[in-house]
Amino acid sequence: MPMELASKLRQLLGNDAVADDAETLGAHSGDKWFAAETPEVVVFAKSTSDVSKLLKFASQNKIPVTARGAGYGYVGGCVPVRKGIALSLMRMNRIKEIHFPDAIALVEPGVITADLKAAARASKLFYPPDPASMKDCTIGGNATNAGGPRCLKYGVTRNYVIGLEVVLANGEVLRTGGRVHKNKTGFDLIGLFVGSEGILGVVTEITLRLLPLPPARATLSAAFATTGQAAEVVQEIFAAGFLPSSLEIADHFTLEAARRDLRKMIVPAGNAHLLVDLDGQEESVHSEAAAIRELLATKKPNTLEMATGEADCEKLWALRREFSNSLRATGLTKLNQDVVVPRSHLVDLMEFAETLQAKYGFSIACFGHAGDGNIHVNIMTKDYIDPEMREKVDRTLDDLFAQVLAWGGVITGEHGIGLAKKRWWPDATSEVVRELHRKLKQSLDPHNILNPGKFVD
Amino acid sequence: MPMELASKLRQLLGNDAVADDAETLGAHSGDKWFAAETPEVVVFAKSTSDVSKLLKFASQNKIPVTARGAGYGYVGGCVPVRKGIALSLMRMNRIKEIHFPDAIALVEPGVITADLKAAARASKLFYPPDPASMKDCTIGGNATNAGGPRCLKYGVTRNYVIGLEVVLANGEVLRTGGRVHKNKTGFDLIGLFVGSEGILGVVTEITLRLLPLPPARATLSAAFATTGQAAEVVQEIFAAGFLPSSLEIADHFTLEAARRDLRKMIVPAGNAHLLVDLDGQEESVHSEAAAIRELLATKKPNTLEMATGEADCEKLWALRREFSNSLRATGLTKLNQDVVVPRSHLVDLMEFAETLQAKYGFSIACFGHAGDGNIHVNIMTKDYIDPEMREKVDRTLDDLFAQVLAWGGVITGEHGIGLAKKRWWPDATSEVVRELHRKLKQSLDPHNILNPGKFVD
Repeated sequence: MPMELASKLRQLLGNDAVADDAETLGAHSGDKWFAAETPEVVVFAKSTSDVSKLLKFASQNKIPVTARGAGYGYVGGCVPVRKGIALSLMRMNRIKEIHFPDAIALVEPGVITADLKAAARASKLFYPPDPASMKDCTIGGNATNAGGPRCLKYGVTRNYVIGLEVVLANGEVLRTGGRVHKNKTGFDLIGLFVGSEGILGVVTEITLRLLPLPPARATLSAAFATTGQAAEVVQEIFAAGFLPSSLEIADHFTLEAARRDLRKMIVPAGNAHLLVDLDGQEESVHSEAAAIRELLATKKPNTLEMATGEADCEKLWALRREFSNSLRATGLTKLNQDVVVPRSHLVDLMEFAETLQAKYGFSIACFGHAGDGNIHVNIMTKDYIDPEMREKVDRTLDDLFAQVLAWGGVITGEHGIGLAKKRWWPDATSEVVRELHRKLKQSLDPHNILNPGKFVD
Repeated sequence: MPMELASKLRQLLGNDAVADDAETLGAHSGDKWFAAETPEVVVFAKSTSDVSKLLKFASQNKIPVTARGAGYGYVGGCVPVRKGIALSLMRMNRIKEIHFPDAIALVEPGVITADLKAAARASKLFYPPDPASMKDCTIGGNATNAGGPRCLKYGVTRNYVIGLEVVLANGEVLRTGGRVHKNKTGFDLIGLFVGSEGILGVVTEITLRLLPLPPARATLSAAFATTGQAAEVVQEIFAAGFLPSSLEIADHFTLEAARRDLRKMIVPAGNAHLLVDLDGQEESVHSEAAAIRELLATKKPNTLEMATGEADCEKLWALRREFSNSLRATGLTKLNQDVVVPRSHLVDLMEFAETLQAKYGFSIACFGHAGDGNIHVNIMTKDYIDPEMREKVDRTLDDLFAQVLAWGGVITGEHGIGLAKKRWWPDATSEVVRELHRKLKQSLDPHNILNPGKFVD
């Protein structure tokens, strides 16, 4: 059967578009999460027409199709759990257009996020979303509605998508929106597809709204004795009417790991670290950075640094960008939970993580987007392949998510549900919400061929 | 039958909740557009439970329900074209909470937009959307995804809705999202309902994301000899990396009407007028306003004024806010079309409006959100009740919308489709898009009781 499927697909799409050797199959069996399933065939689409032909064929033959980008997701969203076809969009990687007067980019889904950002910048334009994996992840993969530190001021991926071409499950091609910055033509079909994790359709072209490129930037870095102090500063920055582009926090475990790992880099003393980023016009950024520096100083930080200009700002950010690597350098497996809490529960969340540490014996490192209340709670574990250990991690997460939900928070802010959070999908939603998901899925993909086996099933 | 329906509803919801006197029915037969239909009964809901009971009853008995707010829409969206029940949400008008640490507002749909803005401001928070009708329109009515001048920097209503309670057609209550600023739990159900014009569900509670209140503001006002000059300035402002909170343009017909109407107010000489608004920290706003003033001066404007501080800025804005009134004072009927074009076609659009003027003999006034490409093209007509005149207007709009769509623009940016633009719905969408709308409607409202007779039917 696998052989037969591959040869049918070769007939349909050409030899070059289809692979079923063990290595290629293995390379398309999962993402950065801890689950894998080998597809029967990998298809590399080069055009909308390829995707359309493939989905028409798959629909007629009821074969699962799991679309994927670079495989940098954190929730196993592109694991082909029902086998069938893994559909790679990595060859659809053209930046078709960057247009200054219309302030838009027209791209294919396989474009790497950082490449798009650079191309926009070269045209004096700005694509704000900056997920940590931006040098590897694709715009199509950002269809989990990816964020990043700059979301605080600029919003998530969804806020920048103004046009989509989507191939529906039956192979029909839907085009919605376009190069206009405002649009109220009917229902929000763009919102329906962005963040749908490959379950409702396959995106083949994206029009992105771009902003004017802010000419200047400043970064402030401060370390405090307690996370409580850092969280207080966050609220005071808002109370003074500032909307920084980023407001990042890290806890003492994260800092400790960085201290052990980054011998050459000076990690500030303290149990909580805050990074504040500002962007805009030169004079504005300078005067605002000076004002926030004063505000930070009143809280008696252990250390306080300020940088202006891209290069010096990036030096202060280097530490933040190394956190994930430093945590991995502990030798433990890092299980990153992108929970979000209402902003007033920031300290509660970090304190709760400490009680979990005591109860279950895992080290837990918290860092992330303080301004959004979107904190990455990283459970650090060894032997994660051991089923008993997995079960213990799951029980820890049962506790964590129950508490987050009790505060009115959510179990994912950026990464999506995928497979990784399927266990908690019923806790995170009501039956009415789940039923509406099933209805939407049924409407758009009646044979359940698109990314089956994920949270909607 | 009408009597019977009213008495059944009184039994279900109480006497106070139901009206069927001619005056109340007439007052709930339409909005600001030129269509009306008298409902059989008006229901005034006071709670989610009222709405739920009503929709369950209506679903079981297949009676149309058209939800409405203050009736300030521009597209006849709340006209109960299939009669049945007009559901007013105006008694659900509580601001339940403004919470600074979480930076959210929790409101009922009947809250007036300006009241919400004022309440947020009193807590040092900021709700950016500012539709022209904000003193009259409701947050629920902004469910057309209302915008306003500030959308340029801050985005539309959708960007601020983070939680919804929605009563579905069968009476079930769906809650999605909440007081978190980021959320990737499943599909974007919020996006599905915001902007759905009462066709997919009835919103009964809204959680809004609020921003820190910017402490300072500046406004620049400049008049130019040609719209081309004004449009050029718009692009140069962006090229210099500025993202003003508003960038508003007006053409010579608008200015002429204002000159005739506003005797006391000085209307700058010229054929194109530009308003630029900035907000943020005091020092930043001052230095940026000075820089933009210099930029404007290089274009040799006829007049150039600058204001800082809320009161003085509002003086410069008074002119802009009077445009609609001045146009109405011509004695003509003003038919406002909120088209959007890719920003590079701003001048093309205004020039095309002049050719329509010559072809059909209507005066046409263009003004609006230059930064977004969202220009209000106002067809000025007399005798709009005359069917022949209506047909002539429609032919003018056929031409206008065909050209806007050919440029890659859209026929509505803020007001929605409703009834007013139903004629052009097939031009503005593909069959694939329309079919998906029908499927979504069928999934959510199989008996077609919610706001039937609008663009989806």
